[in-house]
Amino acid sequence: MLAQSSQDEETVRLVAVRGGIGAVPGVQAAGVHAGIKPRKRDLALVLFSEPQVCASVITTNEIKAAPLIVSEEHMRLDGLMRAIVCNSGCANACTGERGDRDARATARQAATLLKIPATSVIVASTGVIGVPLPMDRVQRGLERAVEQLETGLKSSNDAAESIMTTDRVPKLAAYEFYIDDKKYTVGGIAKGSGMIAPHMATMLGFVATNLPMPADALKAALREAADGTFNMISVDGCMSTNDACYAFAPPGEKTPPPAFLQALRHVCLDLALAMVADGEGASKTLTMHVTGAKDVAQARTIGRAIINSNLVKTALYGEDPNWGRVIAAAGSVGAGLDPETWSLLLNGKTWVETGAIEALSEAEAHRELELTDIVVELRLGLGSANATAWGCDLSKDYVRINASYRT
Amino acid sequence: MLAQSSQDEETVRLVAVRGGIGAVPGVQAAGVHAGIKPRKRDLALVLFSEPQVCASVITTNEIKAAPLIVSEEHMRLDGLMRAIVCNSGCANACTGERGDRDARATARQAATLLKIPATSVIVASTGVIGVPLPMDRVQRGLERAVEQLETGLKSSNDAAESIMTTDRVPKLAAYEFYIDDKKYTVGGIAKGSGMIAPHMATMLGFVATNLPMPADALKAALREAADGTFNMISVDGCMSTNDACYAFAPPGEKTPPPAFLQALRHVCLDLALAMVADGEGASKTLTMHVTGAKDVAQARTIGRAIINSNLVKTALYGEDPNWGRVIAAAGSVGAGLDPETWSLLLNGKTWVETGAIEALSEAEAHRELELTDIVVELRLGLGSANATAWGCDLSKDYVRINASYRT
Repeated sequence: MLAQSSQDEETVRLVAVRGGIGAVPGVQAAGVHAGIKPRKRDLALVLFSEPQVCASVITTNEIKAAPLIVSEEHMRLDGLMRAIVCNSGCANACTGERGDRDARATARQAATLLKIPATSVIVASTGVIGVPLPMDRVQRGLERAVEQLETGLKSSNDAAESIMTTDRVPKLAAYEFYIDDKKYTVGGIAKGSGMIAPHMATMLGFVATNLPMPADALKAALREAADGTFNMISVDGCMSTNDACYAFAPPGEKTPPPAFLQALRHVCLDLALAMVADGEGASKTLTMHVTGAKDVAQARTIGRAIINSNLVKTALYGEDPNWGRVIAAAGSVGAGLDPETWSLLLNGKTWVETGAIEALSEAEAHRELELTDIVVELRLGLGSANATAWGCDLSKDYVRINASYRT
Repeated sequence: MLAQSSQDEETVRLVAVRGGIGAVPGVQAAGVHAGIKPRKRDLALVLFSEPQVCASVITTNEIKAAPLIVSEEHMRLDGLMRAIVCNSGCANACTGERGDRDARATARQAATLLKIPATSVIVASTGVIGVPLPMDRVQRGLERAVEQLETGLKSSNDAAESIMTTDRVPKLAAYEFYIDDKKYTVGGIAKGSGMIAPHMATMLGFVATNLPMPADALKAALREAADGTFNMISVDGCMSTNDACYAFAPPGEKTPPPAFLQALRHVCLDLALAMVADGEGASKTLTMHVTGAKDVAQARTIGRAIINSNLVKTALYGEDPNWGRVIAAAGSVGAGLDPETWSLLLNGKTWVETGAIEALSEAEAHRELELTDIVVELRLGLGSANATAWGCDLSKDYVRINASYRT
């Protein structure tokens, strides 16, 4: 299991529950095989019993897939959302005008079947770029998905499975939290295994709660949660054209209290760490704490540089205690590292002390790296700000998987 | 063979010659096995018959190896250089005060043997980070190297071999050029195979000429040559602590004419392309032209994003015509790509036309990718500026080599 950030302070009571987005009252889900992929489930449908305010963080890639653009338009036009349609097996990106038409047609088909406005549907796609959606299959898939809509764990799991690409396991997370002794839930599903880089969003995620709030408050909460979770993970440093995370809540007047923010952060963190652990070809995970920074931005920049370094990632794969690669990556981004004050810890043990003195022998460090989940701390010795980034190794399997990607 | 930039216009007569840095009159070289590495040559020595002005471009990494810092100090203090000592097998980086003492002692030992000032020696190291130099072996190696100093191809080749790490072949380049019918030479040697990223320098390189010029002019010429060559290649996107390129010329009053600038650019380009072709685990090279940009900076930023993308590199390795990865990488850096106007060419053939219409079938594109040296052009449709970046694939061998790096 990946180590969580040292910043996590449990000041509120959270209870982890099963069911992902389906754990949230008022949410129905389904996942079917529409035939976009040869065999596996490839079409997810989520229906909210009441209209929801919606917030998003989406990829900063200048090439954005059609469904992203259509969904952003729907959020602007309508403001209150009722459903999500998400397919795997086809990204509907770089598909020109046809892609735009297909994304709109998908929303319309779902809306007709569900008797809701087309502009209340969020559409999302993931898979190969440059191939058009097989719209007849999407239509027939939606018809079956509508029939199978259900509350609870099973249907939520089906939906999470339907959005998988190279993922090996479906990703669900949910927490219950309390406000004035009343119980609320935040739950989500996500996919992400490759093409995951620390930039806004970095995957597909859908998170819902039954705590009413204004759209602006939901947006701010999602942004903050994503910055410390989805934006601090990396599998290969590559940024997708389709990445997005959407959050849904019933409309309300009150700004949500800290309990919601912590629950949302925990859902996002669980989903983000599940992505790293399921990284393409990953055999090991790396939890990279950067501490003693002058500010959080510096700590995050350095943490991301380390988890993105191919040389750090291959050393991790090879269980090679090459700490020079960690410090070289940290110094490569011009974030203001002081060559005189840093030190490194490996799995909580002093590894290299200030002045580049090895406290662990090569053999000792190698033994630590034989574990599956590695925790490294880089102490910068510059201040008191901290950040944590999460990554995985770069294995021959990553190369094999991506040398011929077809799902 | 890698394709050269489309910007190369042969307006002056250049003649490629053998011998690398040894082709330059007044240069003696040697390369010996000092025992820093178990078996291979690991210590290079170059001696100039007369004091030289010297210019450098060095890594922007905040963690800089001791020899870089000592050499920069020598250039400031002395200004006129007589010799280069460069070892492989040990980077002398992150070695604290001892590293600094060892770099100075290396210069002093060479200076004593050669009867020149210690501050006229450039020192450089490459290899594993965090391990101290075995100074007794360096001393004995220098003694042998001084005895073996010679002009010509053989000794220059020995020197080029001695600075190799994971390189499979020594890298030498030299061109003759003419000014008023008088013949001059520019020649260089370099090493670089992994940890090569497009940032200032990106390798070890030593380039010399017998055309006299002021130090400032040499500095400007080297900077310009490096920007379009060494700074436009990548093997793995990782930035070293030790990268540097040094240029040497006899002191003179006159600013060098275009013939010199072109010859220098050609030497740097040949060395840079040799590094890419010899990239760790590389089975294919990619020449990435970015054309129709609004300015050169935009073209370079996008070109570097593409050659650095692990997903582009694994697709290249797998001969997988996944053009979506090329365009996704191009869009990921916020350089102002217009999603409506781009088109792609593969080995000179239209691949994907504006509007994401595939002009080559998947089978046709796959056949093009079976070649060893691939040329892709991304037309941005925004202006008339161009740049070329050079990279290689990401193979299982890259992972194998870097999962256990010991040279």
